[in-house]
Amino acid sequence: LEQKNNQAILRAIEQSHPAELGRLIEALPNKYRGDFWRVIPVAFKGEILLSVHRELRQLLIKKTSEADLLVSLSTLQMDELADIDADLPLTVVGAMVEAMDSQRKQRYRTVASFPDNTAGGLMDVDATAVRKDVSLKAVYRYLCKLRKKEGMLPEQLDQLVVVDRENKVQGTLYLSDLVSMDNSLSVADVMKNNVPLIHSLQSAKEVAQIFEDHDLISAPVVDKNNCLLGRITVDDVIDVLQQNSEQTLLASGGLNKELDMFAPIAHISVNRAIWLGVNLITAFVAAWVIGFFESSIEQLVALAVLMPVVASMGGVTGSQTLTVVTRGIARDLVSSANIVSLTIHELKVSFINGLLWASVVFFITILWYGDWKLGSVFALALFVVSLTGTLSGALIPIILKKLGVDPAIAGGVILTTITDAVGFLIFLGTATYLLI
Amino acid sequence: LEQKNNQAILRAIEQSHPAELGRLIEALPNKYRGDFWRVIPVAFKGEILLSVHRELRQLLIKKTSEADLLVSLSTLQMDELADIDADLPLTVVGAMVEAMDSQRKQRYRTVASFPDNTAGGLMDVDATAVRKDVSLKAVYRYLCKLRKKEGMLPEQLDQLVVVDRENKVQGTLYLSDLVSMDNSLSVADVMKNNVPLIHSLQSAKEVAQIFEDHDLISAPVVDKNNCLLGRITVDDVIDVLQQNSEQTLLASGGLNKELDMFAPIAHISVNRAIWLGVNLITAFVAAWVIGFFESSIEQLVALAVLMPVVASMGGVTGSQTLTVVTRGIARDLVSSANIVSLTIHELKVSFINGLLWASVVFFITILWYGDWKLGSVFALALFVVSLTGTLSGALIPIILKKLGVDPAIAGGVILTTITDAVGFLIFLGTATYLLI
Repeated sequence: LEQKNNQAILRAIEQSHPAELGRLIEALPNKYRGDFWRVIPVAFKGEILLSVHRELRQLLIKKTSEADLLVSLSTLQMDELADIDADLPLTVVGAMVEAMDSQRKQRYRTVASFPDNTAGGLMDVDATAVRKDVSLKAVYRYLCKLRKKEGMLPEQLDQLVVVDRENKVQGTLYLSDLVSMDNSLSVADVMKNNVPLIHSLQSAKEVAQIFEDHDLISAPVVDKNNCLLGRITVDDVIDVLQQNSEQTLLASGGLNKELDMFAPIAHISVNRAIWLGVNLITAFVAAWVIGFFESSIEQLVALAVLMPVVASMGGVTGSQTLTVVTRGIARDLVSSANIVSLTIHELKVSFINGLLWASVVFFITILWYGDWKLGSVFALALFVVSLTGTLSGALIPIILKKLGVDPAIAGGVILTTITDAVGFLIFLGTATYLLI
Repeated sequence: LEQKNNQAILRAIEQSHPAELGRLIEALPNKYRGDFWRVIPVAFKGEILLSVHRELRQLLIKKTSEADLLVSLSTLQMDELADIDADLPLTVVGAMVEAMDSQRKQRYRTVASFPDNTAGGLMDVDATAVRKDVSLKAVYRYLCKLRKKEGMLPEQLDQLVVVDRENKVQGTLYLSDLVSMDNSLSVADVMKNNVPLIHSLQSAKEVAQIFEDHDLISAPVVDKNNCLLGRITVDDVIDVLQQNSEQTLLASGGLNKELDMFAPIAHISVNRAIWLGVNLITAFVAAWVIGFFESSIEQLVALAVLMPVVASMGGVTGSQTLTVVTRGIARDLVSSANIVSLTIHELKVSFINGLLWASVVFFITILWYGDWKLGSVFALALFVVSLTGTLSGALIPIILKKLGVDPAIAGGVILTTITDAVGFLIFLGTATYLLI
């Protein structure tokens, strides 16, 4: 493919957006990535490195000369640099900081000093600030001057931050107000003071919620004295939301952080082995429960045939509740204030479905084995395990949350362990007591 | 709670953002929702109705008088109205359209004519357009006039659309360029023509990808002749992204569209019963496979003890691959171009993990049962079912996608059916052939 029509490919690359090229590299098997990376213009490489996932980024950085890295990184913003600097060779980071003027150096150090998942780590330090008492005309003059000096205004600029002499935030001046109001008015006349301030230590998740609730494009970030530090723009927030939803999705398969599909096989294998090992232990817990009833199974082998059905239905019922509660916790809809109401609500649902499917399996068992006693025991076990699953599904995520563990990662495996063990215990136990 | 300090609650409500109140109502059990809804100011109700999920919205609309509805809906934008009009009583929609002037009526009909999940359905019709040949000064005058006439400029306005006499889009004029360039320049001098145009029939998902790739705040929507129809703003895109990620999460539990935690029990029960029924069928498929080996189990009851371990490990191995491939398809990273490479990559991983865990269970079986033959059969079955799971996990989502079925919904249950049936068949079959 690469050899066939190199010219056409090069032209296509130059007309693509870096983010699209980033996705293309993610979709490429490892052996093609090096060749592809080599033909991409250096000017695009900075943004591509930013857009791909960490493991792939480290691989691509290894394939790039330090000189090329320095050129490609010069197109990035401060907050973007601070996001990826941990993956860069130390010499490159040093040379990069060296090349900055003292103001930029200071700014870079400010952003780099905050953890990536806080407002301070997300913010860019290019907030444009004006004073309250100047006229709109003076603001225009200032912006024209700024543009001449810097070559351009910051991206995604929808508002200027209004600060006082001590750099404390007073409000914001929307560009749309600036362009549609009389020149002679002062900033104080036109500014809005209902824009929520973001504190530098707020979590990225809280920031995303504020942006969503208020439909913001950008917001000023302040320190604990309300002094302006920088601003967060909506593109950073979209990245946070996308990362969170990807992580939740992957976590459901126990695939924490496995974002590069074509990562080295050894990496992927180790990453997955942990989860498989955990699952093996829980599977053996279930096997151990069954082991207690070997003699019952020998006498009534139908038990062995039907027991996976009980465990499976308990698991699915429980995971339905688990999904609802985990989502509720992630969206701050579920807390200790309403978990009791929610658990009761869920139990009512599984009471109805438990009764329904217990009746169904009762009749199936009679048709299959012609044994109404076996049918009754099977139906009873299925009903009880449904309620057990629901109760576990509601309480596990709340308890994990209290313990500081992400319910999206550990919830499913704990739930399955409980529903399997309880399912086998109830079904085989009741059968041993009543039928054998 | 409600009675205790009504005054304080009312004050808290008035200081909250409608989206926060929307989340609060979602978190409230049904019996409190009516009382809470009654004390919310009418001016907030429009935005709250917009922010909550459909089922809850319909409930709240039922609890609101038509007069109140009309007042509360007057705060919404055209695209927002078009999103919820299907849930409103016909008389309210009629009165709402009646109250619009003819221009607004026309605009509303334009938006309402597109499906919700297309660019046309997402767009707002408040795009502000200017001509290429006028000076920036004239643009200022136009914006001041527009503001006086409409009371305000459109929200999230970061750029004006530049059109020709036939309303064809020529480019866009960023407000940040407008405010920082010389007044006497013309729009043509300052406008950018690299903003991607959105076509009215593009899917919401494509629109979100374009916004993400290009870090857009707003973009013009055009018809097939490139004539300006409206614009999409980033807040709509964030809503699309959030809805998609919620649906994926819920789909993993078979909970399509179940977004209101406190929806009526009958609704939830029916919604979940379908998934439980599907699962019961697949569980009985597995039981039916086991049924063929009843006499083997009678002779060697350890088979019944160990068989759930085989099925469980096959299921988990497969679901790891399924998650990776499903995510890849959702992000357009996986297609027929690279599915073969990816499947081989995944098979290598599961070959390694299959060998590892097969060895582990081999030794566990020897320790537990002191039977190396049983251990060998168990290990072989676990190894084969790992590869089967991986192969199924890679191919099922691609096949479902080709059939037009969402892999996130149906993938898991099909995978489990296969790994359970194959797992039991291989383990019990090999054991019957070799051990009994």
